[in-house]
Amino acid sequence: MGADQEPVAKKTWQELQAAKAAERNSRIPEEWKLKADQLPSEDVVDLRPIVSSCGILSSAELAITGEEYDASSLAAAIAAGKFTAVEVVTAFCKRAAVGQQLCNMLTEIMFADAIKRAEELDGIFKTTGKTVGPLHGVPMTWKECFHFKGYDSTNGYMSRVFQPADHTSPLAELLQAAGAVIISKTNVPQTMLVAEAHNNVFGQTKNPVNSRLSCGGSSGGEGSSQAFRCSALGVGTDVGGSIRIPAACNGVYGYKPTFGVIPMIGYSYSGWTGSNTGIPAVSGPLGHSVRDLALFTDVVRAARPWRFDPAVIPNIMEMEPVSRKPVVGVIHASGITPHPPVRRAVREAAAKLAAAGFEVRNFTPPDLLGVRDVSEQLFTLDGLSYPKRECARSGEPPVPSVLKIGFWDMPAKTQEEAWAWNTKKGDIQKKMLDEWQRVGCDVVLSPVGPHTAPKPGEWTNDHYTVVWNVCDYPAVIMPFTHADPALDPADVEFKPMHEADKKNQDLYDPELFKGAPVALQIVGPRLGDKQLLKDAQLLDSVLNGTA
Amino acid sequence: MGADQEPVAKKTWQELQAAKAAERNSRIPEEWKLKADQLPSEDVVDLRPIVSSCGILSSAELAITGEEYDASSLAAAIAAGKFTAVEVVTAFCKRAAVGQQLCNMLTEIMFADAIKRAEELDGIFKTTGKTVGPLHGVPMTWKECFHFKGYDSTNGYMSRVFQPADHTSPLAELLQAAGAVIISKTNVPQTMLVAEAHNNVFGQTKNPVNSRLSCGGSSGGEGSSQAFRCSALGVGTDVGGSIRIPAACNGVYGYKPTFGVIPMIGYSYSGWTGSNTGIPAVSGPLGHSVRDLALFTDVVRAARPWRFDPAVIPNIMEMEPVSRKPVVGVIHASGITPHPPVRRAVREAAAKLAAAGFEVRNFTPPDLLGVRDVSEQLFTLDGLSYPKRECARSGEPPVPSVLKIGFWDMPAKTQEEAWAWNTKKGDIQKKMLDEWQRVGCDVVLSPVGPHTAPKPGEWTNDHYTVVWNVCDYPAVIMPFTHADPALDPADVEFKPMHEADKKNQDLYDPELFKGAPVALQIVGPRLGDKQLLKDAQLLDSVLNGTA
Repeated sequence: MGADQEPVAKKTWQELQAAKAAERNSRIPEEWKLKADQLPSEDVVDLRPIVSSCGILSSAELAITGEEYDASSLAAAIAAGKFTAVEVVTAFCKRAAVGQQLCNMLTEIMFADAIKRAEELDGIFKTTGKTVGPLHGVPMTWKECFHFKGYDSTNGYMSRVFQPADHTSPLAELLQAAGAVIISKTNVPQTMLVAEAHNNVFGQTKNPVNSRLSCGGSSGGEGSSQAFRCSALGVGTDVGGSIRIPAACNGVYGYKPTFGVIPMIGYSYSGWTGSNTGIPAVSGPLGHSVRDLALFTDVVRAARPWRFDPAVIPNIMEMEPVSRKPVVGVIHASGITPHPPVRRAVREAAAKLAAAGFEVRNFTPPDLLGVRDVSEQLFTLDGLSYPKRECARSGEPPVPSVLKIGFWDMPAKTQEEAWAWNTKKGDIQKKMLDEWQRVGCDVVLSPVGPHTAPKPGEWTNDHYTVVWNVCDYPAVIMPFTHADPALDPADVEFKPMHEADKKNQDLYDPELFKGAPVALQIVGPRLGDKQLLKDAQLLDSVLNGTA
Repeated sequence: MGADQEPVAKKTWQELQAAKAAERNSRIPEEWKLKADQLPSEDVVDLRPIVSSCGILSSAELAITGEEYDASSLAAAIAAGKFTAVEVVTAFCKRAAVGQQLCNMLTEIMFADAIKRAEELDGIFKTTGKTVGPLHGVPMTWKECFHFKGYDSTNGYMSRVFQPADHTSPLAELLQAAGAVIISKTNVPQTMLVAEAHNNVFGQTKNPVNSRLSCGGSSGGEGSSQAFRCSALGVGTDVGGSIRIPAACNGVYGYKPTFGVIPMIGYSYSGWTGSNTGIPAVSGPLGHSVRDLALFTDVVRAARPWRFDPAVIPNIMEMEPVSRKPVVGVIHASGITPHPPVRRAVREAAAKLAAAGFEVRNFTPPDLLGVRDVSEQLFTLDGLSYPKRECARSGEPPVPSVLKIGFWDMPAKTQEEAWAWNTKKGDIQKKMLDEWQRVGCDVVLSPVGPHTAPKPGEWTNDHYTVVWNVCDYPAVIMPFTHADPALDPADVEFKPMHEADKKNQDLYDPELFKGAPVALQIVGPRLGDKQLLKDAQLLDSVLNGTA
């Protein structure tokens, strides 16, 4: 294997860490930096209002980056000549700069290149009267694990710093060709297997909605980025909940496609390349509306990505979805009982849908804790030999949240053991399909996890999300309500089913969780992505009153 | 793991072999047995004419089972009341009985149950005036690796004899529900990884077209069965060429689908279940026309198999294919130079298509010998621990053709090694896709192998077929010509590229191979199965003058 097994450098990992932090800091213009007295004290929970009070963004820039717009309407406004791409991109870069100083969600900052690209786009628009594509001038942020030529792709490994990529990931190129402007990459956890965004290269990311709670992960930087509105549209990846958990924690929308819908080729692996753990990772968007998730998907599919990525399934998304009121299967709880705000959200959503004339039926998935057991074996087929090797190369230690999920010490599996775990996975897939057929539902409504965002490093149970990776079903995350001590008192009559159930419920603290976003997970059948995105728009309109 | 790891019985494997042979023989009625003086001498090459001369089938039965009909026209004749299901099924059972005595291609004979089922179908037709489905009364044979309730599923392992299946494979149930009548299962090689049909349970299958040459495999029993017309339609499986090689060897049609088109759930594994070698096995038909391959596929897809098999891709086949003259990429040779008859077949086919106005372009695949190296590593991830265990349980030895392919002594791979091989596989897939795009072809025309059927046990190079499993592209096998010493003299000017190339060309003997079927392989893009089947019908009409 050669050079990549050798120790990285003469420098210690702490020296590399400092150099990398200096590089990142140098990419934020001085005039966009918060003054010392503008930095919030530890007891400030909601960090978002600071963007308005700090004075770095003009009122026009606050409006462009504010809740009035999603990516779809922003693209329309640029295409209509209401804003230039430079205006929009600059506004978002400034907002992202503020977000970074408050929440530490950015990794490779690309503001200078972004504004230059926006100028080019404005030039083209001025000359031709046409946009280059449906995302002309739309600022995007991307999870660290995509390559952008000239920028590092560390995935939070110290062994990979100061090794700029020699190419841009094809998915990113595709979106750029449609007019998107990339303003930064966003933070991830070491190993990318944790529902956090903490590593030795970039540090820990904060949740801007409630700074005391986790930003989730592994696309945690992107979840934080979207919640702070650092960009109009973000991209993450998901192999166990890594798009959905941060979308839920930070109160934004997210979509985990079925494998084969969105190209993954040429992205930056965080383990052995070509891994066939039996659970495929997928890319997908995080953003501010269901229609933005659909816009992203439509742009990607319109580029016919099966022409360059052998894993992409052709034509499957090109059939028109039908207009319908989907039959909704509901999972209230499985394996671990959710915290009161999560239970309330699912209960209220189901009631609201029933009241609006939707057929709502109970759905009983295969035991989700059993599913989780299978997934953690499949995620550790190699005994995490890749991250261990990378840490050894730089001398950096595993961060606490990596050790906490319990993967670190799991042994490597033989081929026979791997195949036995894959057989169990197949049994789960069959049970899920049989239940779906038995219930006769079109979508499933489920919690995203057994809690809202917990304290940083405490999201250790991914069983409500990983099951849909194991089964490879698409899922949309939709914000729905917020934790409210008045509505969500601790459940004093709670009878735990087992120790893990007790431990989870003990985490609930109505005051700590106050205001935490509570999201819903809407799941569709495997490869039913196009119809799911349409169904989710309808459900969102009923549940959230969106247009 | 328990009971299945224990030695099977008090009986030796030779005693079990004799008991199994007696059981099979007892399932052929005495009046369908050839007399000693009707058995051909060793020097009879073409065994097919014996079905006409032996007197066991009436002239009506010879007509029903003869070349006048394919499955499509037979189904139409039954539906029109021209034949009863009992007439048709009985005729094929008799023909299969004769075939078995000449070629040894059957494993679990089901004649009695088949005729009983045909009587039921006739009763339904008489009562309702309707068929039960599009295959009403059509006799089928199935590769040994499918389960049929009440019959063994040994896959040629002595350790599995006299353990009847407790269920029927869902794919078989689906075809039965459409009216198909199963008359027998057909032979396979020990391990199912060899292009042969030889195992200790059922012995060696012969090629009815040229008894001195191999029947191919692993669906070798089915290839032989279709060539002898033991049934109207057969089913095989293919992970490296196992449908295509026997179809080519025996001069019949065959179709290897993309993975996810035809359900595989609930069939009888020949290795560890749930294996994720990275190269998925698929099921598909062997038969007498391209339209029969399409009929099979349409029947399967019409049953919406994604409702019961989580691996099946929905909707992908439900888009209407277009009428077109496909642009044809041609592979004349790669890795090992084909024998003269194979070179001639591809050359003549390409010329015939060009003359008919098709655009024909050269296609250069990734190095096929390199592809083969990757596939053999992926096929032996476990060091063949499963077949070794099964052999140890009964005490049976590996048969010579299993030892000859060189898999038997390959070591087990670590997870890291497995992932490295899968990375190479991904590189091959990408190169193939890039070449497909560069050439701009709709289908590829290729040899099936570096020779026609060789002597039994000598098909050891599957690189012209396994590449399409590695890349997961669908392929249709189409008979085209026959080896002819006058047209295909040995190539005296041949300059071998390497030792394997020389060894292959040395195998060529114009007199031995005389009359051997020479087939073409027509490949479509991944998941372009529906269009490929339509394109193949057009190509067949041009190349073979079929309607």
